[in-house]
Amino acid sequence: MADIRNSIENFTMNFNEAFLEKAEGYRRPLRSALCAPVGTVRMEKRGDRWEAVAENSPLLPRELGKGESVCYDFGDHRVGFVSFTLESAGSPPDAPAHLRIKLGERPCEIGEDTASYSGSISSSWLQEEFIHVDVLPAAVSMPRRYAFRYLEITAVDTSPKYRVVVKDVECRTVTSADTGALKPAPSDLPPRLKRLDDIAVKTMEDCMQDVFEDGPKRDRRLWIGDLRLQAQVNYLTFGNLDLVRRCLYLFAGVTQNEGSVGACMFTEPRVIVDDTRLFDYSLFFVSCLYDYWRETGDRETLANLAPTAFRQIELSEKLLDDNGLIVEPEGWWCFLDWNDDLSKQAGAQGVFIYAAGQAAALADALGDGERAGYLRSLRDRLIAAAERFLWDGDALFYRSGKDGQISYASQVWMILSGAADRERARDILTRLLRNGNDLKMTTPYMHDHFVKALMECGMYCEGFEYVAGYWGAMADDGADCFYEIFDPESPDTSPYGSMMINSFCHAWSCGPAYFIRKYWDRLTPRQKAELA
Amino acid sequence: MADIRNSIENFTMNFNEAFLEKAEGYRRPLRSALCAPVGTVRMEKRGDRWEAVAENSPLLPRELGKGESVCYDFGDHRVGFVSFTLESAGSPPDAPAHLRIKLGERPCEIGEDTASYSGSISSSWLQEEFIHVDVLPAAVSMPRRYAFRYLEITAVDTSPKYRVVVKDVECRTVTSADTGALKPAPSDLPPRLKRLDDIAVKTMEDCMQDVFEDGPKRDRRLWIGDLRLQAQVNYLTFGNLDLVRRCLYLFAGVTQNEGSVGACMFTEPRVIVDDTRLFDYSLFFVSCLYDYWRETGDRETLANLAPTAFRQIELSEKLLDDNGLIVEPEGWWCFLDWNDDLSKQAGAQGVFIYAAGQAAALADALGDGERAGYLRSLRDRLIAAAERFLWDGDALFYRSGKDGQISYASQVWMILSGAADRERARDILTRLLRNGNDLKMTTPYMHDHFVKALMECGMYCEGFEYVAGYWGAMADDGADCFYEIFDPESPDTSPYGSMMINSFCHAWSCGPAYFIRKYWDRLTPRQKAELA
Repeated sequence: MADIRNSIENFTMNFNEAFLEKAEGYRRPLRSALCAPVGTVRMEKRGDRWEAVAENSPLLPRELGKGESVCYDFGDHRVGFVSFTLESAGSPPDAPAHLRIKLGERPCEIGEDTASYSGSISSSWLQEEFIHVDVLPAAVSMPRRYAFRYLEITAVDTSPKYRVVVKDVECRTVTSADTGALKPAPSDLPPRLKRLDDIAVKTMEDCMQDVFEDGPKRDRRLWIGDLRLQAQVNYLTFGNLDLVRRCLYLFAGVTQNEGSVGACMFTEPRVIVDDTRLFDYSLFFVSCLYDYWRETGDRETLANLAPTAFRQIELSEKLLDDNGLIVEPEGWWCFLDWNDDLSKQAGAQGVFIYAAGQAAALADALGDGERAGYLRSLRDRLIAAAERFLWDGDALFYRSGKDGQISYASQVWMILSGAADRERARDILTRLLRNGNDLKMTTPYMHDHFVKALMECGMYCEGFEYVAGYWGAMADDGADCFYEIFDPESPDTSPYGSMMINSFCHAWSCGPAYFIRKYWDRLTPRQKAELA
Repeated sequence: MADIRNSIENFTMNFNEAFLEKAEGYRRPLRSALCAPVGTVRMEKRGDRWEAVAENSPLLPRELGKGESVCYDFGDHRVGFVSFTLESAGSPPDAPAHLRIKLGERPCEIGEDTASYSGSISSSWLQEEFIHVDVLPAAVSMPRRYAFRYLEITAVDTSPKYRVVVKDVECRTVTSADTGALKPAPSDLPPRLKRLDDIAVKTMEDCMQDVFEDGPKRDRRLWIGDLRLQAQVNYLTFGNLDLVRRCLYLFAGVTQNEGSVGACMFTEPRVIVDDTRLFDYSLFFVSCLYDYWRETGDRETLANLAPTAFRQIELSEKLLDDNGLIVEPEGWWCFLDWNDDLSKQAGAQGVFIYAAGQAAALADALGDGERAGYLRSLRDRLIAAAERFLWDGDALFYRSGKDGQISYASQVWMILSGAADRERARDILTRLLRNGNDLKMTTPYMHDHFVKALMECGMYCEGFEYVAGYWGAMADDGADCFYEIFDPESPDTSPYGSMMINSFCHAWSCGPAYFIRKYWDRLTPRQKAELA
């Protein structure tokens, strides 16, 4: 998720060095593997869409004269460091070799002219480099980490006397996921869902680096909204608990004004918190800690980090009016989904209810009955306000904001929070599934929460059908990993103004591995057969 | 000099490992110094010409948002490695910094759009890099060596949330010239000639690297035509004899088909000879060895390398017809000057006469009277042929080629060879100075030989006036070093189709330091006063 908008005024940072030492202590060396291209492709535009067409020729050293290119296909998504050997053909090289290196997760990133990019976020994320090589032959090791499947090398210029020869192209991948520790998916998964599980696990693997990154191409950072979903998937797949602990301690290790947990963290050259604050994201520190505690029973971490979690509740209360209803501030204050038209009030109210319940459970675990009681009463007050001011008994939907907007996000978070009882929840979800909502969900992140709502209401068949439909459409689109953004009705559009800048391996999309491992066996054999 | 044309067919190389070991043994570590910019400038186009306008502001850290630039002026020509520090201003950097780094010896290289280059030699020589910096703050050390005075840094993109801050810009220069060993120019030089001497010495210094390079921006190679002039200047300035020895052994260490000395050498990643063969350049091995022997009296080097020198004479004889006159082959066979319209026959005949006389002297030094005798008779035969077929007793000029072309190059080489006696030589030169010649000299290299002809005929005043005129015009043009190419009547044109690609520090232009040190004291006090 790229924050391109407002930041906190008079931003300050609070450092907790003990927590940062803990975070550093949970850092583990990355795992590496060497991989080579499986072939070469050429990119062709068919309609509005760039496609990779295999050249079906053996991987021989490739000679390039001025303006000529070769595009390698690594066969799957890779995150790592690229190297290759350059030689020369013809006369001795009498001028440097000037090369353009383009890397793309998807064909459009290779096919489109990078210079034509005029999207809303920084063009510096586009994976295109220009290098001069003064002496040939040369072993070229690109110093930056890339996320890609396709690697194009173009000889911008050599000289009339020689051509450059490219060979020994390879990638040293990096991840903090131990594929040997991967917990298997259910053995009776139908192939289509197995494929989605594989893609989700690959997405997860490629986003697991020194921290849980949102996307290894962009923004390559620890966002707490992404962390929450990643940690949930991680518990059921790679089980890398150190990485979760590390990330929890990072968020608690540097907080913003008033002790607020930031939306995202930077870890290089030193750990700092970004100046972006989001209402829901701060509260997700509670959720992340709650999930971790439930998974591990680790009392020490709980005791260390609970004060930070409770602080997020206290700060969030400041946004309540006398009725216990959230008052929407100006600007970019709550994420929920990547949609400027979305009223965030009801969704935020839902997230607050959700987190308040989790915080009460943490207080219980710590034996702090007084706090637990307060948090439960807060939760009740929030639910009451939602019932009184947001629930529309005629429309039978929750409304949000001064215009009374009805959206997926508002319904989903009210359901996940437990504000809606199961009967109402199933009714809402059934009508949403049948009739849809004008305000479409834009991110797989929001779709993930929609599926969680279905599953938690016991609508397993509907949940898996939805997964097969939405994530399945990404697989049909040719996804090697699940995307940051995907609209099945318009797969080639970007909220940033250019597909080139989209992240095509984005952790908040890896939910299928969670749903499959957690809910597949809730299905009857007959239901399983119907999903096959 | 950039060879963009033909090469030898069925090219082979002959390695003499003992000579290459000698060459390696004479290699010395380069000398380094740190230097910083003296200020910042902006480039402005005035008419057809880019000029650097000083900003007259102190050298503070410079903040750059998307699309913004800063151009540093290092105050003089530099050859070395650039480094700088990058920091950030605003929010934490949430996207890589994408920078363009342009380096220029002259303002036009900064001002012109590199992408517009469509000249005849490789655009890969243009000193423009694009880099991504993922983590800020960062100490950036550019890995390639550049030749420049101006360094422009542009923030291609940062992000809407931060700006990049540039500071601590510096350059670690490299040279194999020991400025502490520089032999001083005559103390009574007038300021204008002193300035030319300074520029020539600076040109020399910046071209003295691991070998004598033609130009540190382009082509960064050891060419024997340039070596000959550089060694001559070196004897009178820095006196780095190891570097001359190293270069002689390199040329003899790898020769072309039949033992021909190549026009230029590559030294990285291993020593090889280029596949370019030029008649005059091969013969200049004789001249380089002759000059070295005269300078040092080093019998061991003479004995080792004389066979290679004599071989060049033998190979050159193959181009003679029965009359002892050179027959012009097709293609790019003899350089003389950077001019496609120039008939090379007479100039080549002159170079052959010149080298044959020097070879005879080397044979004498080795006590090889038989060879010396043969070489003298060869020289006589070449002179006789020139006299009979090339000298035009009516026009009182030497002619060249089937069209009987009259050029500076033909006259100059006949004079330098000794084929014309002093009276005829002075007459020719006087008329050339008075009337000019339609076929203009294009390179400072050719102008250098013209001045040598004047000086060797005792026309010292004319010689220094010529130096003050031609090289002085380069100084007036704002030269920090002397250029590869310069036409005072049209200073902003390039034979390559773009000024951007010209080399503005080129060793074959450093003759003034030679002329001044060798001939200044031949002037009478009155002549000196007239030149002031």
